[in-house]
Amino acid sequence: MSPRKSAKSKVPLTVCVIAVGDELLSGFKVNTKSSWIGQRLGELGIDVTAGRVVSDQVDVIAEAIADGLKQCQAVIVTGGLGPTSDDVTRAGLATFAGVEVARDARAEAALRARFEQINRPILDTHLVQVDLPIGSSSIPNSVGSAPGVRMNFDDHVVYLVPGPPREMQAVMETGVVPDFVRRRSHFAVTKSLRTALLPETQVAALLADWAAQHPEIAIAYLPSPAEVVVRLSATGDDTKAVSTVLDAAAEDVREILGDAVVGEAAQTLAQSVVALLTAAGRTVAVAESLTGGLIAAAMTDVPGSSAVLQGGVVSYSTQSKHDLLGVESALLEVHGPVHSGVAREMAEGVRERFQADLGLATTGVAGPAEQDGKPVGTLHLAIASATSEVDVTVHLRGDRTTIRRQSVVHALDLLRRTILGLPPGPEQIPFWHG
Amino acid sequence: MSPRKSAKSKVPLTVCVIAVGDELLSGFKVNTKSSWIGQRLGELGIDVTAGRVVSDQVDVIAEAIADGLKQCQAVIVTGGLGPTSDDVTRAGLATFAGVEVARDARAEAALRARFEQINRPILDTHLVQVDLPIGSSSIPNSVGSAPGVRMNFDDHVVYLVPGPPREMQAVMETGVVPDFVRRRSHFAVTKSLRTALLPETQVAALLADWAAQHPEIAIAYLPSPAEVVVRLSATGDDTKAVSTVLDAAAEDVREILGDAVVGEAAQTLAQSVVALLTAAGRTVAVAESLTGGLIAAAMTDVPGSSAVLQGGVVSYSTQSKHDLLGVESALLEVHGPVHSGVAREMAEGVRERFQADLGLATTGVAGPAEQDGKPVGTLHLAIASATSEVDVTVHLRGDRTTIRRQSVVHALDLLRRTILGLPPGPEQIPFWHG
Repeated sequence: MSPRKSAKSKVPLTVCVIAVGDELLSGFKVNTKSSWIGQRLGELGIDVTAGRVVSDQVDVIAEAIADGLKQCQAVIVTGGLGPTSDDVTRAGLATFAGVEVARDARAEAALRARFEQINRPILDTHLVQVDLPIGSSSIPNSVGSAPGVRMNFDDHVVYLVPGPPREMQAVMETGVVPDFVRRRSHFAVTKSLRTALLPETQVAALLADWAAQHPEIAIAYLPSPAEVVVRLSATGDDTKAVSTVLDAAAEDVREILGDAVVGEAAQTLAQSVVALLTAAGRTVAVAESLTGGLIAAAMTDVPGSSAVLQGGVVSYSTQSKHDLLGVESALLEVHGPVHSGVAREMAEGVRERFQADLGLATTGVAGPAEQDGKPVGTLHLAIASATSEVDVTVHLRGDRTTIRRQSVVHALDLLRRTILGLPPGPEQIPFWHG
Repeated sequence: MSPRKSAKSKVPLTVCVIAVGDELLSGFKVNTKSSWIGQRLGELGIDVTAGRVVSDQVDVIAEAIADGLKQCQAVIVTGGLGPTSDDVTRAGLATFAGVEVARDARAEAALRARFEQINRPILDTHLVQVDLPIGSSSIPNSVGSAPGVRMNFDDHVVYLVPGPPREMQAVMETGVVPDFVRRRSHFAVTKSLRTALLPETQVAALLADWAAQHPEIAIAYLPSPAEVVVRLSATGDDTKAVSTVLDAAAEDVREILGDAVVGEAAQTLAQSVVALLTAAGRTVAVAESLTGGLIAAAMTDVPGSSAVLQGGVVSYSTQSKHDLLGVESALLEVHGPVHSGVAREMAEGVRERFQADLGLATTGVAGPAEQDGKPVGTLHLAIASATSEVDVTVHLRGDRTTIRRQSVVHALDLLRRTILGLPPGPEQIPFWHG
């Protein structure tokens, strides 16, 4: 029975994911493909039952497919669909099914059209990619040359999807996800919120009572340095009803966590800040010592950031804090470069020099060693505007890389709070001036 | 038979790796643990035979161990050793073995000592972690509370190691790797070289003849934007002999690839450049438009970089190229900011303002849209010293993120070549001045 015909079957789907590739077993490449498939199916309300990684061998792939079909209704195999001799996933499926491969006319036409379009001659080796197990059908690949494959076995199904992430995703969306949407027994909706500056345990503690009262909502916490994403999900028979429940849940969570919620998790903090600046019609310039260019790099990664980020100075040497930003030499001599007053003057200096509405500055000690008696993890931030200045001091834990990353979040979050007229966040010790 | 006793068995070891965790199946976390194990065993000359990801369920884990032992002599299970109700890997092994768990005296003593040391009370829930399957033995965990577990089944063995990467690595090094070193049939040695600016296909083509003449050396190519790591490995009965063969191979590869070899792969390009500048006693300052802070961020990520990087300017706005770097207004008006002459003046300007020996500058179009009629992917680089200037133009392909990353490699590699007195690299069209 094909997936289409079994739409009436409303038991939860079981799905096995097989990633093919010696480079995954050896750890040369991290298996992000299986993660993506897990996430994508999770959005549909389908949990992956089991995952495997197997080597590029016909018999091994055939056996993994056989095992997968014993355990799962649907088996998704990713990788090994390219044109080289290493690419044996099609042969693996054919071996399992006990069939030969044959050229697929529709896939061949698509492949020839693709090569014509990019003006390259098509070779026999390329055509190997459209030799598919007899009895299977092809799934178009809009971004690469290897088509996907769908093959039904009674009420079970095997999908072959390419290995390169972009191609895998395209084939999944074209030919696999639509099947699953038809087959799934219930709908799942997910909403994720990004929070800054609260530790994971505190986010969970703040939400504990609410979570206990809302068993219908599954909550997951995804931490990264100085940020936690709160992922809410719910399932049901009716998408609209589930969405309504989840929208209300997200509202509750926003209310409980308050200012700590930066926005939807799909947006990075830098994207949120660029959007806020754009909406407010304000510009910023950054003076970075401890963060050494990371804040500018995060902001310029956002398309359209040039409208709000005038630029920045990485004043790594103490001398350059005076020469390029106008920090008073006396201040630097007395206190050294790691000082809240220095941060304030850096913020003011960069604001003036770039003619920006706001100046943001960082100075501190990323490690590995302490500096001028200031311990590793000391961070001074400052924001200057035409009318006021604020500086905050934070004490961070971790290695050099973690301290730098946390510092970026602290700095961007202070900028966000300044634009919104909010006070500095938790763990930030503020001093207001002007 | 225990692993110790089977040291005389000189057939290649087969190893299955099982990662436990719903968060891996759902894609909330990427399975980097299995990658690490694959890499670590690869360094010992042992290939992982197969990988699995399973959910946090006793029966599922027991079945995966059973399947693993059918296929492999050694099964390594990572994850699910913590103190919470989700952590059922110990129970999974006990179920497979048909035994109960019992408190392990040695592990309990170590756990109590650990809690005393960090001055926290030990709870019953913590002690669950030292309830091990009867007949197994514990492997000390020097960085966390959950010990590893080793359990022999005739000449097969199952290891349980913690999920958190640091703890997993510690237990692997203490109790798993030494067993494997004794059991392995041969030694493997690996040497990896980092190359810049050559596409993967070209690196492989340049090495094709040599590779054909050296079948004893396995070669792998690991590409990232504008870089390729060439990984050479060889195996044999005698470490010293294998090392000698591999050293000679690495020398050959360096000779064939010439200037494209940046250094050992363990060093990033930024680390190599910082080391070269340090050795030469020279300083640099960077003026970044297209790269928007990424070059400064990459260099300041290297501990000790403050001795050679004076700082930088992110001159994102056109006006700031004049105001902060002294680029002539007339030049900007006539040609716009994306121009080789602008790059040269930026490099000279930043060098002067930071009193550095060298100035490095980037300007170009990262996309998504073209700028002033210059296509996406246009990159102008310049380096200024006290006596000369060079600028190069590169045309890059890819999305915004890829173009920015490639630009960093091109810029740092141009800096490397300048310090070494080499001409600009492939794909870089140079113009020399002064």
